[in-house]
Amino acid sequence: MIIGVLGPKGSYTEKAAQQWLTEKRINECGSKCNNGPEDDSLSLQYCEDIQDVFSFIRDGSLDLGLVPVENSIEGSVGITLDMLLEHDVTIVGETVVAIEHCLLSKGRKEDIRIILSHPQALAQCRHFLKENFKGVELRTTGSTSHAARLATEFEEMAAIASRESAQTYGLNVLLSNIQDREHNHTRFLTIVRSDHPATYPKQNGGDCAYKTSIIVYLDRDRPGALYDILGEFSLRKINLTRIESRPSKKTLGDYLFYVDLEGNTSDDIIKEAIYNVESKVGMLKMLGSYPAFKPV
Amino acid sequence: MIIGVLGPKGSYTEKAAQQWLTEKRINECGSKCNNGPEDDSLSLQYCEDIQDVFSFIRDGSLDLGLVPVENSIEGSVGITLDMLLEHDVTIVGETVVAIEHCLLSKGRKEDIRIILSHPQALAQCRHFLKENFKGVELRTTGSTSHAARLATEFEEMAAIASRESAQTYGLNVLLSNIQDREHNHTRFLTIVRSDHPATYPKQNGGDCAYKTSIIVYLDRDRPGALYDILGEFSLRKINLTRIESRPSKKTLGDYLFYVDLEGNTSDDIIKEAIYNVESKVGMLKMLGSYPAFKPV
Repeated sequence: MIIGVLGPKGSYTEKAAQQWLTEKRINECGSKCNNGPEDDSLSLQYCEDIQDVFSFIRDGSLDLGLVPVENSIEGSVGITLDMLLEHDVTIVGETVVAIEHCLLSKGRKEDIRIILSHPQALAQCRHFLKENFKGVELRTTGSTSHAARLATEFEEMAAIASRESAQTYGLNVLLSNIQDREHNHTRFLTIVRSDHPATYPKQNGGDCAYKTSIIVYLDRDRPGALYDILGEFSLRKINLTRIESRPSKKTLGDYLFYVDLEGNTSDDIIKEAIYNVESKVGMLKMLGSYPAFKPV
Repeated sequence: MIIGVLGPKGSYTEKAAQQWLTEKRINECGSKCNNGPEDDSLSLQYCEDIQDVFSFIRDGSLDLGLVPVENSIEGSVGITLDMLLEHDVTIVGETVVAIEHCLLSKGRKEDIRIILSHPQALAQCRHFLKENFKGVELRTTGSTSHAARLATEFEEMAAIASRESAQTYGLNVLLSNIQDREHNHTRFLTIVRSDHPATYPKQNGGDCAYKTSIIVYLDRDRPGALYDILGEFSLRKINLTRIESRPSKKTLGDYLFYVDLEGNTSDDIIKEAIYNVESKVGMLKMLGSYPAFKPV
């Protein structure tokens, strides 16, 4: 079982993968949920960026992949939402990781001329950077751990990355917890190829809570279309945990909606709601039903 | 009348400011709309980033400011949405600018080692960069024109910026129209200080179309709350042009909704809908009513 995460070693996605696997084993919700990968047959493959995780799942070189989807400070990870639409993948799990960004460097704080990190991490530390490092050059990398690895090269460079990355790459933690809000969490999704259900059998039943994710493209010319489809869920008391719009990329003002709801498509009520929604929208893409994250 | 835009000279925001002022004069929708600033009393002030536009409006050194709010490829500009919530500003106008990103440099394509631009522009050219400049270092700047100015320093640097920036800074256009989709548009908002209505009197009536923007924070513990507030608009046949969620930053899974609707708060029907919505939500912030963009 090969699991793709953002590389190199020490990324938050790697942490998410390990956490998700542990949660999976701990939260065995009934025997049917206990069909996840076993430790001894696991290997991590480090990918350069989020696109690569999706591409390697498509070409079969990964069995599973983990990707960040939203953060409590900076919101959606646009590229992940776009890839979920473009690729034939199914979501089989989610997990939430506490993010504590640190400023790591070989040098001293006063020597820092360049700060490197993933664009999401830079955005999560926007106020910190503006107040403490105004004018310092910001460089983007494919992951926070990649930034940490690059920061080993020069003393004038610093990376925004995890405390673990400091250890991995022999950097000093100059400042910790530097994100703009104390509480910072990122939600990650575990994905597989849609035509590989055998890799990770769909879970029905069990006593844990499920989530279902869909993408809908409304009929633009019908006002109140979003209200109408939300009604299908409201009518059945199905709780929506998230509604996120994303440009259709056809024209400005034209959107897709990413909806997460509580429940499993194997439940009749969910099946019925989605069936009705499908008849009212221009396009509906089912992303999957998966055990909801439950803090241990 | 001092108008704040992203600087230095040649930014898309500057183009948006000029376009908005022109549209304002051309689309004089009744005499009441014709109270915009006059050409001869105008001056542009270049700001380093979006936060500065908001800060300078707050401290009174700007009368008006323009900020990007959404793009047809990359979606919302998170920082603008956050600032609209945090600052006491009122939206008095909008405009839409066609974006044609070019790769600008003093050097040749094969010499490029570093590409600079605003994070939104880098994201709009994501596929292009991955396919053509894999491994090249990406640096973020406060605006595309700032990237162009920096790219004048070394031949191994290139900027993603407008064709006009090439002229302004004496750079070569190595490649044009490099964004991932041919059609690329950014919507900009014109903002003023909320307690300075005199600067830019609220426009009531006239024969042009209006939009109204609000932010709502729902009551989390009430399922179906979003459906319920959308119902207030649907009931009155008020068309919503955009619904965007944004993290409340309190905890993951807790969101604010930014809603744009057709109509003016001076219309009774809109007033009534918003009054009803306000009674159902945890918080409602009125961002303003303003003439809707109309392509000339």
